[in-house]
Formats: sequence, C-alpha cells, structure tokens
Amino acid sequence: MLAGLNFATLLLSVAVCQGSQYKDINSETVSVDQGSTYGSLWPLPQQVSLSEVSFKLSSSSFRVVDAEGSSAGPSCNILQNAYRRYYEYLFGNARKTGHFKRKAARSELSELQVSITSGDSDCDGYPGATSDESCDQMYFTGLETFSQLVYEDEYGAKSINSSKIVDFPRFQHRGILLDTSRHFLPIKVILANLEAMAMNKFNVFHWHIVDDPSFPYLSRTFPQLSQMGAYHPYTHVYTPGDVKMIIEFARLRGIRVVPEFDTPGHTQSWGKGQKDLLTPCYSGSTPSGTFGPVNPILNTTYDFMNLLFKEISEVFPDAYVHLGGDEVDFNCWKSNPDIQKWMDEHGLGKDYAKLESFYIQKLLGIVAATKKGSMIWQEVFDNGVKLPADAVVNVWMGSGLQGEMFNVTAAGFTTILSAPWYLDYISYGQDWQRYYKAEPLDFKGSDAQNKLVIGGEACLWGEFVDSTNLTPRLWPRASAVGERLWSAKDVTDINDAYSRLSKHRCRMVERGIPAEPLFTSFCRHEYKGN
Amino acid sequence: MLAGLNFATLLLSVAVCQGSQYKDINSETVSVDQGSTYGSLWPLPQQVSLSEVSFKLSSSSFRVVDAEGSSAGPSCNILQNAYRRYYEYLFGNARKTGHFKRKAARSELSELQVSITSGDSDCDGYPGATSDESCDQMYFTGLETFSQLVYEDEYGAKSINSSKIVDFPRFQHRGILLDTSRHFLPIKVILANLEAMAMNKFNVFHWHIVDDPSFPYLSRTFPQLSQMGAYHPYTHVYTPGDVKMIIEFARLRGIRVVPEFDTPGHTQSWGKGQKDLLTPCYSGSTPSGTFGPVNPILNTTYDFMNLLFKEISEVFPDAYVHLGGDEVDFNCWKSNPDIQKWMDEHGLGKDYAKLESFYIQKLLGIVAATKKGSMIWQEVFDNGVKLPADAVVNVWMGSGLQGEMFNVTAAGFTTILSAPWYLDYISYGQDWQRYYKAEPLDFKGSDAQNKLVIGGEACLWGEFVDSTNLTPRLWPRASAVGERLWSAKDVTDINDAYSRLSKHRCRMVERGIPAEPLFTSFCRHEYKGN
Repeated sequence: MLAGLNFATLLLSVAVCQGSQYKDINSETVSVDQGSTYGSLWPLPQQVSLSEVSFKLSSSSFRVVDAEGSSAGPSCNILQNAYRRYYEYLFGNARKTGHFKRKAARSELSELQVSITSGDSDCDGYPGATSDESCDQMYFTGLETFSQLVYEDEYGAKSINSSKIVDFPRFQHRGILLDTSRHFLPIKVILANLEAMAMNKFNVFHWHIVDDPSFPYLSRTFPQLSQMGAYHPYTHVYTPGDVKMIIEFARLRGIRVVPEFDTPGHTQSWGKGQKDLLTPCYSGSTPSGTFGPVNPILNTTYDFMNLLFKEISEVFPDAYVHLGGDEVDFNCWKSNPDIQKWMDEHGLGKDYAKLESFYIQKLLGIVAATKKGSMIWQEVFDNGVKLPADAVVNVWMGSGLQGEMFNVTAAGFTTILSAPWYLDYISYGQDWQRYYKAEPLDFKGSDAQNKLVIGGEACLWGEFVDSTNLTPRLWPRASAVGERLWSAKDVTDINDAYSRLSKHRCRMVERGIPAEPLFTSFCRHEYKGN
Repeated sequence: MLAGLNFATLLLSVAVCQGSQYKDINSETVSVDQGSTYGSLWPLPQQVSLSEVSFKLSSSSFRVVDAEGSSAGPSCNILQNAYRRYYEYLFGNARKTGHFKRKAARSELSELQVSITSGDSDCDGYPGATSDESCDQMYFTGLETFSQLVYEDEYGAKSINSSKIVDFPRFQHRGILLDTSRHFLPIKVILANLEAMAMNKFNVFHWHIVDDPSFPYLSRTFPQLSQMGAYHPYTHVYTPGDVKMIIEFARLRGIRVVPEFDTPGHTQSWGKGQKDLLTPCYSGSTPSGTFGPVNPILNTTYDFMNLLFKEISEVFPDAYVHLGGDEVDFNCWKSNPDIQKWMDEHGLGKDYAKLESFYIQKLLGIVAATKKGSMIWQEVFDNGVKLPADAVVNVWMGSGLQGEMFNVTAAGFTTILSAPWYLDYISYGQDWQRYYKAEPLDFKGSDAQNKLVIGGEACLWGEFVDSTNLTPRLWPRASAVGERLWSAKDVTDINDAYSRLSKHRCRMVERGIPAEPLFTSFCRHEYKGN
C-alpha cells in the first residue's frame, strides 16, 4: 500500500491508493524559516522531503479539484465534503478580496489536484476494515497532510513549500474508545472528537455504548432497554437518528464506527428493561434481589440476543461488532442453584470460565449469522473459546502483556492493542511521552505474528470524564498514540515529537478543538470556547 | 461574627453582619423527598435546620427586596447586581406566565427580604481583608445559600423548604491562585472562574500574574515589560481596562483581587523589557549571556521597583500585594564577580540567603510606603527577613509543613496555607477527598497561634492548564478546599460530602461552569458548551 501526496509542477503523482498533486503557475523561489525539520506535521508521514521553495495560497483563487483521470468526480460526496472542510480549515472566515476567479500571481499555488487511482469509486460506501479497503481513507489523510504543510508567513499570508510526501499508515486499525455509559456524552462532544480523530488520522471509533451504569442506546426492537436503563429516557439516549448521524459524520472523515455491546458482564443497566436477562444472585437459598451477568442457561437469553444483534447489524454498517466479554464476575453464578444444577447436568462442574465460554460461543454464532465479524476483549481468548478465524482479539491487560500478544498471534488471531493506552489513567506531567514510547510489536513474535497486530486503540473510559472535560483530556494525549500507530517504527525522537506536537495541538485549538497544552507555552490563537 | 439567613414567617433575622429573611403568605404543609440530609448545600453552613414544610417559588411573582430597616437600599449596586444574578440562577430563561405582579398563591414563597445590619453601607467599596470587613462579603454568601436551598420538585416547580440557617466562615481568607504567566488566560476564563469562586464562597483571587515565561501585565509606567515580555504584546496582555474589569467583576461577587508580582526569582520575562534589572550570569570570568534573579546591588533596581509598585498600589485596590520571594536560585549570583565584590564590601560573605533578604527587606519598605500590606511565600520568613507586623506568610512547602506552621505562627505572623492544595498535581481517581481531609490547624499550636491561621488557598499553577482545560480541572476539586475553609472543623463525613458535592457540581454545570464529574454519574442538564 502506498499513497503519494505530491505537489510541485514537475512531480508526478503515482499512487496505488490515491494521490494528490498541485500545479503552480510560477515558481519564484522564496526562502522561509522552517522551524523544526518537519514543521508541524503530525503524525509524521512515511517519507517527507521539504524544500525551501515556497508558494502563497490565496483564499480567493485557491482551488481543490479532481485531477484529470481521477476515478472520483464531483458526484463523490465524501470528497466534496472534505474539500470544503479543508478549505475552511485553511482559510477560516477569510473575506473575499477582489475577483474570485482572478489570475494567480507569481509564486502562487493555485490548485490542489486530487487524483484517486484506486478502483473503488463508490463514494457512498463505508470505510472498510481490511487493509485494501482502508485505502479509501487516504482521501482524507492526504488532505490533512496537505493542510498541515500550509503555514502563515510573517504577513499572515498562507504559504506552502514545495514538498514531496509519500505516505501510508504503519497500522491499519487506529482507534479511539469512548464510553457513553458511565457518563452520557452529548452528540456534540462525540462529533467534536470525530473531527479531532480525523486531524490525527485515526480511523476507528470504538463506541463502548452501553455498560453497567446506563444503557443510552435506543433499540427499536427493545425500547424498554433505554427507557428503563438510560440515565434518562429522553435526554440521555442515542436515538436511531442520532446513531445514523454519528455514523455519517464519521464516514465523511474516513472513520469506521465499531459499536461495543459488552456481555455477559457489564450489563447491570440491561437488566432494568429486560426481565430475566440477568442472573438472579442468591444469598444462601433465597434470591438476594441483586443480579449478576447475563443468565447463560436460559433459551430466552439467546432469543433476545438474536433479535438485538440482528438490529445492531443493521444499524451499524461496519463489518465488525465488539462483543466485550471482559471482567466477568463469577460470584453471582456461583450463588445461583439453577446455574449450579445446569452446570452439573452439562458436565461443566465448577468451571465458570467454561460457562462463560459456553455463552460467548453461542453469541459468536449469533453474530456470525448476521454476517458480521467479532471483536472481543482478551479474556475470551484466554478462556479458550473457539473463535472464528476472522475474530479480532483486543488486548487490554497491562500485566503479562508481551506474553499475551505472543499467544494471541501465535494462535493466528488478528490483534488490537489497547493496554498501554488507557488514557483515563491520568498523572502529573507529560504522560503523552509514555504513550508515545509504547511499541506495539515489542514482543518476541515472528514476522507472521507481527503482521497479525493490525493496530491499537487509545481508550478513554468514562468514570471521570463527561462533556465538561473529555475533549481536552483526550487531546493531544491521544495524538501520541496516533503517531505511534501511523508513522514508521523508527520515528521515536521525543524532542522532535514535542516540537511538532506543540504546533499540532495549537492547530487543533485553532480548528475549535480544546486540546490541552503539553507544557508552558502559548498558541497564537488561544482557545476561546465558542 | 455571625450571619443569619432565615426564612419562614415566624423567624426573625438577628444578625451582626447581615441577615436575609423571607415572608410567605400561607403555609400549607407539603412533604418533599429530601435526599441527603443537607440536600445540595456546599459548603455546608455553620448551622442548618431544614424542615419538611415546602413553598413554591414563581418566576413571575418572586421578589428579592431590601428589608425594612436594611442599611443598604436600591442604590447599592453590588446588592442589586447580586439580586439579578441569583434570580437568573434560580429561574434561568423562565418565560413570564400570566401577570408579573399577580397575587401569590397558597404555599408560595413570594419574597426574599435581605436585611443588611452592618454599619457599612458603602456599596462602592472593595471587599476588605480584615475579618470585620469581610462581613460585607456575606451579602453574597447568604444569597448563594438561599439559591442552594431551592430545588425543583417532580413537576419542575421551584421549591424551597422552611429552614433556618446561621452561617459564617470558619476562615476569613479563602483563595484561589491562578497563574497567567505559564499560559495566558483569556479574560473570559478568569471571569468564569470568579463566578465559580462565588458559587463556592471563595473570597480571594490570588492573581499570580507574571513569572518567568511571560509578563502579560501591561504597565502604564513600564509598557516595555509586556511589549517585550508577554507572549504577544497585543493578544496576550492584560490592559489597564482588562484589569479594572476583572477587579470590578470580582468586587460584585465579594472577591478580593490580590496581585502577585513575584521577585527576585521567577523574573526571566521581566528582563526582556527592562535593561539591567536581572543579574548577568557569568561563565568563568565572562558574562554568559543568560540572566538570573533581579540584581539586588544596583540602585536602579530599587528606583524601578519603587515606580512599579507605586503603580500596582494604584491599579489594585486591595490592601495587600503578594511579593513572592520563592525559589530563588543562587547560582547566577554566585557566578557574578560584581555581586561577590558587593557582598564582601557589605559583610555578607557567601551568604546568598542574606543577599536575598537584603533585597526583600528593601522591597517590603517600598511596598509599605504605598500603604499596602505584603504577602510573601514562606522562604522570606525562613530566611529571617524582618517582616512588618501585618505581613502575611504563605506556606506552600509540603515537607516540614507542621513545623513551618508552628514556627510562623509562633513568631506572631498571620499565615495562609497553600501546601496541601496544589491542584496542578493531578492523579487518577477522586483526589478531591485528599484536599477535603487536609486540616489547616493540624499542627501543635496554641489557641493564639491557631487564630493567626486566617485561611488557605487552592493553587492551580499554569504549566499544564490554559483556556482549554483550566475550569474543569479546578472545579469541583477546589470546591473541596472551599468547604474545608468555610465549614465547621467537624464537617468531615466524606460520604455526606460526596452526596452534596455531586449535586453542587451539577448545579455549577447548570450555571454554565464546566465542572468535571466526581465519578460515574449524570446531571439532569449535561454541559453543552455554549
């Protein structure tokens, strides 16, 4: 996979996935102060060659156009949307001066030609999960890189230097996990973070949508789940329309939306609207009135899951659904005489991990029947569940991490790493450096094993974040993860990263994202709210 | 000092400083669900007695009025401003229904009578530093308490229960330190935090306005200080008009503004605009081109300080100025041959602490001549500087804290405690509990020594906060400090505090302050930005 973003008169864009090129009219040389070697590029592209030849961009004459021969044209709405978005990032509220279609001046970059050379010209599709499909997402990352090359000279004139960029991501799966159960996140907050994800070339929104504390997903099939299980049945739910909007907003930025409906644990809120779904816990020989994980011994449980995951498979277009499967507490199952009896009858004895596996195994079948792939947390693999070949194992435990990565990949499963990137764990100082230094392939695997590690995710669990503080807590700390997952393995210079990331965070601030500061500093345009 | 906020027909307000009372027309008993014993009161008043008799408040007929015989009337602008502010907090964007001056219904609270019984009726004054003067600030805290007693019943009707509150602060000095040098804070952010301070009954804004990284204070006398020393001479400065507005905004909320101009260390930014102010450091026998603390051996230094602090004394109406005096690095002084020669000539030998004291001693004289009191960080006391009797020592070092508190108060100096409340040090989880548990009088002092501890300050140093994240990082963590400094010493029940603080933080959110969550939870009205 190779993508080129080339611009200078004489450079030709040759790209497997996609290329953008620009054509300038004249090329009078202007020297500029470059600051850090790579300016404000974040994440760092795979190959960067910057010259000192600079061109100005005029808000009145600059154009982004589909190159001749491009497989995508004006009818490709995701491209047209992206053109508008990046024009606005570049020129903001620029007032028109003079004629709009005036002739370009000397030393001016008048046009960015975007040439899509992949065969896929279906611009109404959703970003795909495989590496071939992920080429589509390069539409956006190329434009992002272009926009990062534009700077203001000392007179405030937008400028860009003649440069050659060849780019592609090191890992195909670059995700952010947000948790909308522990605190409800207004749609506005989710959209803002999708914007920020695009600026950092993340391409997967792992939506941990429901959990113990609340069930904000409004299900058409089982509306009582959110009516009873949400913090509030109207103000704290995601309606089908909300979900559709979030998915479309993400699609327009090349971002997949992978929903997680975590079971059999983490389901307290499910029990409020769905009778008999959870296991009744016992105190001695009588029910205590509390409930445990999903009850795995009732047929009604699987009837329910069948219908729910059928709906989910229709609501969420992504090829994958995350089934959770983490942190199942066995105490309630142990206390329940019906569970014990069933386990005896089915020869499971006292092995509750086997009971959990029994449940997950059936759920995996239900999901496979909807033609979706399954992502699961590592415990499901650890417990010996027979996983489908296309299952993706999400490794999240810090202890024994390298062994786990080895084992999962040795078993031939695709793996996503989250363990080093639990961004809800805050500490004083520049903890982004710790996230930056984490290396996904830092375990003793073969080349074949390494290839199974398709990426990672930065996770911001919701205990301590809501709409008041989520965005500045996530950015630019997640940006560090973004570069680790995108750039070449040897991009590890922490000082160079600091310089680029400081500028990148000010760029996010200028674009309206309240990304917090790395350290004592200032931005030319401080965040002023909105 | 005693202030009473009493409301119920038969209760009579008797208060030394101030009293508010209300009069209701009828008093039909309505039972309400009280939740936590003290509802959402924060900080907890000194005496609270809540009944189950409830009254409704109507946005169209409810009035806040000056009681008969009150020493403050309609011409008192701070009171009128406060009435408007609290009316808006209570009723938000309530649409008028029916006639505005309709007759109050049964079970309705129609009027809050505010009776000011202190002699001081000068509503144009600034909040004072002494305990007598601080009675004025009770105008606001009484209204805040009243507003905290109002709740919405299940039909959304504003209601209040008949209650008796007697209230006064345990400590008279309850401050928040914000640092506008490491990151510039837009005025909007400072004002929002002054609002939040009032909601938490803080009454001192300790404005650490300049420091090494930048000098945003625009001095009329020495404009080059900010022209050269600010991050940007126009966009990152506080003009005289800005400062005046901030002081007035604070005054209208009973908040003092104590500016800190920290010297002789922490002054790198000063050197950019003021030639010869800082000590040239030497590398061997030649100047290295870098600079150290303020140069204490030049007369020009004191001429400069004389003029600057004269201006400061005029710009800032508060009775105190904070002179800093912390963390002076002696290395540069040690390297400089002129300093060494001068010390030899003046019999200081190699005792650089004495040199620092020489400087501070002269500065204290300069400030005393402007009729202002001085606050200083603890090192000034530790170094044996002869302090004026009214100096206030600010204790900030965590190690040896109890000994320091003992020594400062044993020497007869008024003390303010900041050490346990450095809120820039973040950690995972509910660190507000640590701040809450810190007890200012937790050292073995006599009663007389205890009385010298007039309060404390929550400090949010600026390395890692700016306008993107400051407000949610400060609140409600600083609220924990607020209750410790306001409420009785035995108010230490962490579960009760959690319950009240959770509601208080949602109230702050509803009032537009993005106060972050304590833990997994929801607010009826989530923060939606603005």
